[in-house]
Amino acid sequence: MISLSDLCKVIGAKLIGANNAPVDSSITITGFAELEDATANQIAFLSNKKYLSQLKNTQANAVILEEDFLANCPVTALVVSDAYLAFAQATHFFSYRPSSVQEQKIHPKSYIDESVVLPKNVQVDAGAVIEEGCCIGDGTVIRANAVLSKNVILGEHCYIDINASILHDCVIGNHCVIGPGSVIGSEGFGTAWDKQKNTWCSIHHQGKVVIGDNVEIGANNAIDRGTIKDTIIESGVRMDNLIMMAHNSFIGQDTALAGQVGMAGQTTIGKRVKVAGQVGFAGHMEIADDSILMGKSMVTGSIKEKGVYAGYPHQKIELWRREVAMHRRQLKQLYLDRKK
Amino acid sequence: MISLSDLCKVIGAKLIGANNAPVDSSITITGFAELEDATANQIAFLSNKKYLSQLKNTQANAVILEEDFLANCPVTALVVSDAYLAFAQATHFFSYRPSSVQEQKIHPKSYIDESVVLPKNVQVDAGAVIEEGCCIGDGTVIRANAVLSKNVILGEHCYIDINASILHDCVIGNHCVIGPGSVIGSEGFGTAWDKQKNTWCSIHHQGKVVIGDNVEIGANNAIDRGTIKDTIIESGVRMDNLIMMAHNSFIGQDTALAGQVGMAGQTTIGKRVKVAGQVGFAGHMEIADDSILMGKSMVTGSIKEKGVYAGYPHQKIELWRREVAMHRRQLKQLYLDRKK
Amino acid sequence: MISLSDLCKVIGAKLIGANNAPVDSSITITGFAELEDATANQIAFLSNKKYLSQLKNTQANAVILEEDFLANCPVTALVVSDAYLAFAQATHFFSYRPSSVQEQKIHPKSYIDESVVLPKNVQVDAGAVIEEGCCIGDGTVIRANAVLSKNVILGEHCYIDINASILHDCVIGNHCVIGPGSVIGSEGFGTAWDKQKNTWCSIHHQGKVVIGDNVEIGANNAIDRGTIKDTIIESGVRMDNLIMMAHNSFIGQDTALAGQVGMAGQTTIGKRVKVAGQVGFAGHMEIADDSILMGKSMVTGSIKEKGVYAGYPHQKIELWRREVAMHRRQLKQLYLDRKK
Repeated sequence: MISLSDLCKVIGAKLIGANNAPVDSSITITGFAELEDATANQIAFLSNKKYLSQLKNTQANAVILEEDFLANCPVTALVVSDAYLAFAQATHFFSYRPSSVQEQKIHPKSYIDESVVLPKNVQVDAGAVIEEGCCIGDGTVIRANAVLSKNVILGEHCYIDINASILHDCVIGNHCVIGPGSVIGSEGFGTAWDKQKNTWCSIHHQGKVVIGDNVEIGANNAIDRGTIKDTIIESGVRMDNLIMMAHNSFIGQDTALAGQVGMAGQTTIGKRVKVAGQVGFAGHMEIADDSILMGKSMVTGSIKEKGVYAGYPHQKIELWRREVAMHRRQLKQLYLDRKK
Repeated sequence: MISLSDLCKVIGAKLIGANNAPVDSSITITGFAELEDATANQIAFLSNKKYLSQLKNTQANAVILEEDFLANCPVTALVVSDAYLAFAQATHFFSYRPSSVQEQKIHPKSYIDESVVLPKNVQVDAGAVIEEGCCIGDGTVIRANAVLSKNVILGEHCYIDINASILHDCVIGNHCVIGPGSVIGSEGFGTAWDKQKNTWCSIHHQGKVVIGDNVEIGANNAIDRGTIKDTIIESGVRMDNLIMMAHNSFIGQDTALAGQVGMAGQTTIGKRVKVAGQVGFAGHMEIADDSILMGKSMVTGSIKEKGVYAGYPHQKIELWRREVAMHRRQLKQLYLDRKK
Repeated sequence: MISLSDLCKVIGAKLIGANNAPVDSSITITGFAELEDATANQIAFLSNKKYLSQLKNTQANAVILEEDFLANCPVTALVVSDAYLAFAQATHFFSYRPSSVQEQKIHPKSYIDESVVLPKNVQVDAGAVIEEGCCIGDGTVIRANAVLSKNVILGEHCYIDINASILHDCVIGNHCVIGPGSVIGSEGFGTAWDKQKNTWCSIHHQGKVVIGDNVEIGANNAIDRGTIKDTIIESGVRMDNLIMMAHNSFIGQDTALAGQVGMAGQTTIGKRVKVAGQVGFAGHMEIADDSILMGKSMVTGSIKEKGVYAGYPHQKIELWRREVAMHRRQLKQLYLDRKK
């Protein structure tokens, strides 16, 4: 909960009453709702022209929007330059997930090894386990039944969600979120064939996973440690759910990966790349900064030129679309010919 | 374990002795086995003509089957109108998973917040964590190391399996199963680009996940909460393992999704749809009731007409099959031409 | 840490000084590093000609290599017949994961049912839960917050990693690793339609999962139990992360499956098969021994002849490559024609 005036400060909004009427900015906003559902103490936002028709009948206390839509707003407006960003910023004030904790709150049913020196402000919930040698930054939260294995280094203001597993020696920066059930630092999939014993001999991976600042990783991901060097996730990266990131792969700054993406070993993805769901990377390749990969594409080699790619194997999206269209035309022709 | 006579009642079977000989229906059945493996106190079933040859030599105590196969049955028959359904019903009596618990059984190594009022009958196993404000229905089981985060509402006769994570505020109906390692209510994958800070600003999702009655969800799934409104799973839905369900998606009544299906944000799937493994939905679309999606297909837009679909991008299955056949013919022709 | 002389014994290496100078084999090796990064007490390896240029400037204490590269080695050489295998073997001495434990080390914050007889040597970490009737072999490690459900049988020298879930009655052999977050023995995805109730009636699966010796399974996998008979993983199998293995499927000896592979029910994979990431198997099929499946292929029927396969639906890789090339030529031609 936050007052309208405080909210304006945080998102940098200009507060404008309906028909320029004066606004009581001391009112408390209790949460967000859609334009069409919002009631008295709720706030809504409009960032997409598609929803403009919902604006005129909204019962929201106030609406976050850009100047273009101001004339159409029947209630108090919070005018910003980027309504979608302002919405994102505002959601932080109605979140179950604190950006930081301001006290030391250790649950008696957690287990923290005696070698661990806890910071002044930290929350460790029931069933959480923190093993020897771990180092945890100030303001960090370790949720119920999460585990930090030996010698994990965790930055400030992090949030390790329920049932997450951070394996030994991994390093995580500040303001990071590791989602529920995610595994950071599992063994890589490397194994040598032993001709004498006629079976596999696994490599015990010597590297770790190193994660920068402001990285958010979703639920039930599996991120493998490196064989000798480390697996690396740079600052600002966003990862969705159920993503497979193999040993020694690398994700550049601010890149975003959607659900079920799979990266084979030594895949190097550049900065600000956007990867849609279920995309596969065959490994041992580099992906240019600012590239976009469409859903379910299979990337079989390096992408040197930024662009939008799709298909199996991947190609530029305009070629992929033409290919799909060509096939469907051929198919249609084939059956027209048969009918003759 | 159940007596033959009780089993007959439950599955609505007519008990008929081999060659119409009288049957001792007080005998105790200890479990199921395949027709060819079953011994004295075991029961088998036959629902597929393919296995008819195994019937004549079966050593099972009794066989669940339909009237058509009765003449071929050398042992006691439990005649039903739908043998596969009767088999499914009968398995419930040989299950480790109770349909309900009849006592209050709280493990001393679990943690239940003092604000939680437990029902008369409930089982909470070792390591389970139930946080403040949770509300749990009668007859429900919370297995070892599962976590219910704040304010979860859970119906009657549910089974929350080992290491499952139910996140804050989610609502689950009656007779639901949440499989081991599954996550219900993880953050959605929504983030706004902050031009000033030159990095991502995540949306803290305000919605929850709402699940109806008689829903069964398998292992290691990730189901995201909604951005403002909720992610919804209607009654009767079946979900397999490792499924990604993004924010604000919707699954209609009795729809079944196989393993590794991925739904991007705001995918709306109708009722009684069958989705095979590894299918991807690109999001912001609607899928007609009673549709069938074949394995690994990529659904790139709404499906308005019910039918069977396959391919990447998806098309009607008969077209997809023709396209595959056309390509293979072209390929053959090409190499015949080259040989000339 | 291990002395150079002991390391040589273990990997069967011949120790040869630079320019045949005498070697102090009592020196302690502290770990591995890449050729270009290694320093005084570290060891490196060379198994791929591609990295030969890095050999001449290496600062490693010693390098594992094959005889062919000996002349190029400026430091002590550990000459072996298979450098990659020797590297894999050597990594076991610098591993956080012991091949066995030599003491009984039960954490007071674990829970072990009183019916369980623990072996002489075993490690059970904080938050781990071992339910009634479990049987655990000597030298085995159960990591933090892992759960063994009722009647699990676990062999000797196994390693059950953090937050893993082994469900009731499953049987695991000796020297097995179950990765963090993985689920062994979840319910299969089998359900019968109940026409009367107009909804699904689930089958409660009666089989279990049976795993041989020397099997290593990665993170966040989901392996379902069998319907009546068991799901089987033979000895020597390697499984990566996020793999879906459905009820009654079978994986033959020494087969390796990469990340996000999905096997539908009753998929039978032979011995020494290699399956790349994101491959899907449609179920009810057999895959010949020694086959290789390329990344993201969709296997829609049995593979009777060993070979390399790719595509959706799968075909022999040379045909798939030709088909891809044919399509791209057709596409090029189409646009050349249009320009005329």
